[in-house]
Amino acid sequence: MARWTANPRERLARAALDLFAEHGYDTTTVADIAERAGLTKSTFFRHFDDKREVLFGGQDDMIVVLTKSVASAPPGETPLSCVAALLYALGGYFPPEHRALAVIRSTVIGAYPELRERELLKRAQLVTAIEDALRSHDIDDLTARLAATIGMLAFEIGYDRWAATANEETFSDHVTKALTELVEQATTLGPASPEMS
Amino acid sequence: MARWTANPRERLARAALDLFAEHGYDTTTVADIAERAGLTKSTFFRHFDDKREVLFGGQDDMIVVLTKSVASAPPGETPLSCVAALLYALGGYFPPEHRALAVIRSTVIGAYPELRERELLKRAQLVTAIEDALRSHDIDDLTARLAATIGMLAFEIGYDRWAATANEETFSDHVTKALTELVEQATTLGPASPEMS
Repeated sequence: MARWTANPRERLARAALDLFAEHGYDTTTVADIAERAGLTKSTFFRHFDDKREVLFGGQDDMIVVLTKSVASAPPGETPLSCVAALLYALGGYFPPEHRALAVIRSTVIGAYPELRERELLKRAQLVTAIEDALRSHDIDDLTARLAATIGMLAFEIGYDRWAATANEETFSDHVTKALTELVEQATTLGPASPEMS
Repeated sequence: MARWTANPRERLARAALDLFAEHGYDTTTVADIAERAGLTKSTFFRHFDDKREVLFGGQDDMIVVLTKSVASAPPGETPLSCVAALLYALGGYFPPEHRALAVIRSTVIGAYPELRERELLKRAQLVTAIEDALRSHDIDDLTARLAATIGMLAFEIGYDRWAATANEETFSDHVTKALTELVEQATTLGPASPEMS
């Protein structure tokens, strides 16, 4: 799903976002979405389980990309350089022409707790995919969880900055920069207790 | 909610967990829970919005405790020592006699995606509360997000270890230890890109 082409899945996703922006998420029906996309309701349900899922399409693809990206990383990379490589590999999902849709999507999700919950579940699944990929590189459990968690924070910060800033910087640029900033900050957090210093 | 006393809210929560363990979450009704607790359905709905919320009671109290704990931290503490202090302050919510219930709770939540989603939302709210508290100590946004995120990971790891291990260590011991381990690991994650080394 690197581009908004004419394939049915992407036509449905774009139609849904347009309708959510115009009429609200609650009042938009699956029939409305299918009609706007010039497709049938049964086509919709071949691609998505429900109206909510239309906002989270591409997630399973992203997990496949993440897993492949880490699997192909050369041995000897640090945990965070593995994470950086796989976040970079997600750039194809966020081309510049998706920026405006990303803003609509964030607004819709922010307005409905049920959507926010689904987004958090999807992100937790991404974190687990990153953890599993890191473990397959013989990275221990605690390190994998920490690196994956920091990676997801970089993803979130980079995504928000990318969606908010209409300049030349790509999604991957923003995420890589956020990860680098977080790594630098991690050294300044101080010990967890005064006794440790 | 430091102890399972005879107050209605806690009687309802304990009755619900017992019933979920015995008969499953799906088949247990609010009427069943109220009956087991020796209370009425209307009492149930005075304390909880729905059956799902009974698993997440105490969350709002925890946010109040977190916020107070950070607000009372002496200035000059490091971001992570603030986080450590506030996670420590949550220990009262997890006395040893709650361990068995925590195991039931985790099992029930793990079995239903809708419950997992709600848990993730509640944890995201806790992270936001920690972030806000850190910002009120003049800690910058990025550092606050990173410290709060690592703190929540320590909470999750410590909680799971506490629930899984029937020894003398308290919830606070487990969480403090997890946070210390994560801080040590954070220095070994390596640069985010090979070029940075």
